[in-house]
Order: sequence, then structure tokens, then C-alpha cells
Amino acid sequence: MAVAASDDVKLLGVRPSPYVIRVEMALKLKSVEYEFIETDPHNKNELLLQANPVHKKIPVLIHGNRPICESLVIVQYIDDFWGDGPSILPSDPYQRAKARFWATYVDDKLLPLFKELKEVKEKGAGKAIIEKMTEKLALLEEAFVSSCGKEKGFFGGDDVSYVDIVLGCYLGWMRAIEILMDVKFFDETSTPGLLAWAERLCSDSIVKDVIPSTQKLVDLARVKASSE
Amino acid sequence: MAVAASDDVKLLGVRPSPYVIRVEMALKLKSVEYEFIETDPHNKNELLLQANPVHKKIPVLIHGNRPICESLVIVQYIDDFWGDGPSILPSDPYQRAKARFWATYVDDKLLPLFKELKEVKEKGAGKAIIEKMTEKLALLEEAFVSSCGKEKGFFGGDDVSYVDIVLGCYLGWMRAIEILMDVKFFDETSTPGLLAWAERLCSDSIVKDVIPSTQKLVDLARVKASSE
Repeated sequence: MAVAASDDVKLLGVRPSPYVIRVEMALKLKSVEYEFIETDPHNKNELLLQANPVHKKIPVLIHGNRPICESLVIVQYIDDFWGDGPSILPSDPYQRAKARFWATYVDDKLLPLFKELKEVKEKGAGKAIIEKMTEKLALLEEAFVSSCGKEKGFFGGDDVSYVDIVLGCYLGWMRAIEILMDVKFFDETSTPGLLAWAERLCSDSIVKDVIPSTQKLVDLARVKASSE
Repeated sequence: MAVAASDDVKLLGVRPSPYVIRVEMALKLKSVEYEFIETDPHNKNELLLQANPVHKKIPVLIHGNRPICESLVIVQYIDDFWGDGPSILPSDPYQRAKARFWATYVDDKLLPLFKELKEVKEKGAGKAIIEKMTEKLALLEEAFVSSCGKEKGFFGGDDVSYVDIVLGCYLGWMRAIEILMDVKFFDETSTPGLLAWAERLCSDSIVKDVIPSTQKLVDLARVKASSE
């Protein structure tokens, strides 16, 4: 049975998972109402196991009675299904390809380093990882500046779109790690474009509410570290 | 400057790279004429470095003067740009999401095992990897059979489409490994649907010419092994 725009939308997830944030950003951009169903990924309930039997992971979007899994698949589904809202992927094929290219770059090149970094327990030990991340971010800075300049806009132009979502879901955690490990991911010298972009994204009226507060994440990480 | 359908299409690659095969399958499905520019990935030329400065990898599609990189990004670009040819991704948002889900599954869960297997030098040593691959393929078999039954069709229905391309690009190598390592990926008992699917894909009039001959790959692997 086909689904209709009016069918219920449920999001299974937990805050502040970056992959869940991606889906929430996309739903906000399209002004889709949804019910957030808190779903513990470490203690999987029946609904999660039924909705995502292959990976048994969050996020899952349930639209009507149809589950959709994997954050980027969900974001593209939202863009396809609610096609008349603001576009998440540009309509021009070449611009779409560029957005997909940089989204893949973030997921394949940057996020594995980010995951490694979260496992580092001492401030000094992450230096080599940070250096690699800085190299990767420098290329992203070039792409960002060449497409919209340092001073304004987002990856796809004037509005938040695909690459902003894919990278932006990590902003809260990146800022928290900056404090916890006394490092800098974005700065005035090497990544002025991304530094200003991050500010704009975190104060964007549509998505700012789903980006978790840096202080909350810092507190969460400290509680977790002290309980290990 | 925007590109037009009549602009030259060039494909930088080397045969029989599975990622290049993906792009060739998509171009064949859309009946797009293209020039194949043999490009050695181990001895990168100026054209490749200019066209893909980020990854310096094949395949790269150059359409007019615009380079597009990363196999799945290119396949989606071909589908978007030549939109009036046969669809590679279905038009229904939920079916698109399902196709993207299984394509991601192939790339994230199956291909890393496949790469590990290619590094194994002795027949017996790959047993544990083959067992894991068999588990992953069983889930894919379920997905295939539930969407189109054992006897007919492709992942998206009656015609070759996205998931067929994403998995099918490996068929030549899978068959070669079956001979070289005396193993079976697809068989009548556990994956009858995929076994018949592989036969159909390898004899499909549109894409069969870009699937490399199993014997050629076996010979290539033996020459490579003897020179190491």
C-alpha cells in the first residue's frame, strides 16, 4: 500500500546521535511533523528489530507503515517524498553530483577519523588524528569557499542543504571535542569559511534546535568518562 | 557553463575495475556514447590528476568539461542527466529508498569482505571470510526473492537497474574467485534466486559486454600471482 504525505511519521532514535540529527534536520527543512520515539540502540526493542531487521540500528523513519533505514537513505527519501518543500539536493544533475561527492567525502574520509578520535582517552594522544582531520578539512574548506565564498551561505547556496546536513550533524560533537581535548577543528587561519559556516548553521532558525548544545555534550562525555 | 546531452562523454578508467564496470553499465543502459580513455590507476596521468584532484582515482566521467568522480555518484548523475532513458533508480520514493538501502548494504557489508578475500593467497585461508560472505548474501537473497521471486527479473523489477549495477559489477570477479579458490558464492540450495539472477545479468543484451569474461579474470589473477 502506498503512503500519503498525511500518514504518520515516526522517527526511532536517540539524541544526540549525529545520524539521528541528520534525519531531524531534513524533517525540519521540509516542515514535516513527526513523532520522536526514544529508542535505546544498546537495548534494542521489538519495534526497532522489526523496523530494521538487517542492521538493527537507529535512525529508522517509519512513514505510514513503511520503515526506511540508514541516515543518508532517509534524508534522500525525505527529499524525494516531500518534493515540493525546499530542496535538500539541488535539481541540477551536476550540482547534485557535487553535493553527493562531498557528502561521500565527509562520510568516507572525515568520519572514520572522527570515530577514532572519540576513542582517544588522553588529550595528547589524538594529535596525529587531528593533523589528518585538519588536512581533510582543508580540502573541504576549498570546496566550500569556491562554491560560495567565505562570508555567506551554505554548501549548496543560500539555504541549508545536503552537505550542510551531512557534516553539520557532527558540529555539536566537534565543538565538544574542541573543549574536551583542547584542539581546534575550524579556525580563522586555515578554515575561515567553515568557521563562519558553522556559526551560521548553529544559528539557522530552521535547524538550530536539533543541534545539541556543546555544553550538554561536554557534560555527557565527562559523565561517561567518569563511569568507565 | 552548463553541459548538454550532446557534449562529449569520456570515461577515464581501466578494465576490468568493478567501479568502472558500474559506470559502463549505466552508460549502456542509457545508450550514451562515450570514449573510454584507458587510465592506469597506478601511474596517474595529468588528465586524471586534474579531473579528480581529491582522490586521484578512477573512474572519472568527463561530460563536456565537467568531471564527475566516485562510481555511485557517477551512476546517479547518468540517471539524473539522461532522465528520459530507462530509469536506473525507480521513480517512487520508497522504492528508491529500498534500492539505495541495498546498494549501501552491498558496498558497506559485502565489498569489504570481498576485498579481504582478494588478499588471501591460499585456497584454505579464505574459509572464514567466505562464511561471512555467505551470511551477507543470504540476506540479499531474501531481499531479492521477496521483491521479484526466484525465477525472473532483476532487483528493481523486469529490467536491470541500480542494485543490479552495484552488485553486478563484481560478478566477473566473484566467478573468477569461485574457480581460483574452489568456493561457491551462489548455489541452488542457499541462494537460488541470486544464482539465476547472475545468469540473467551475464546474458542481458545491454550489459553483458561490459561484464568481463570469467576465464580472462582467472588468467589475469594467475599471471599476477606468478609475478609476485
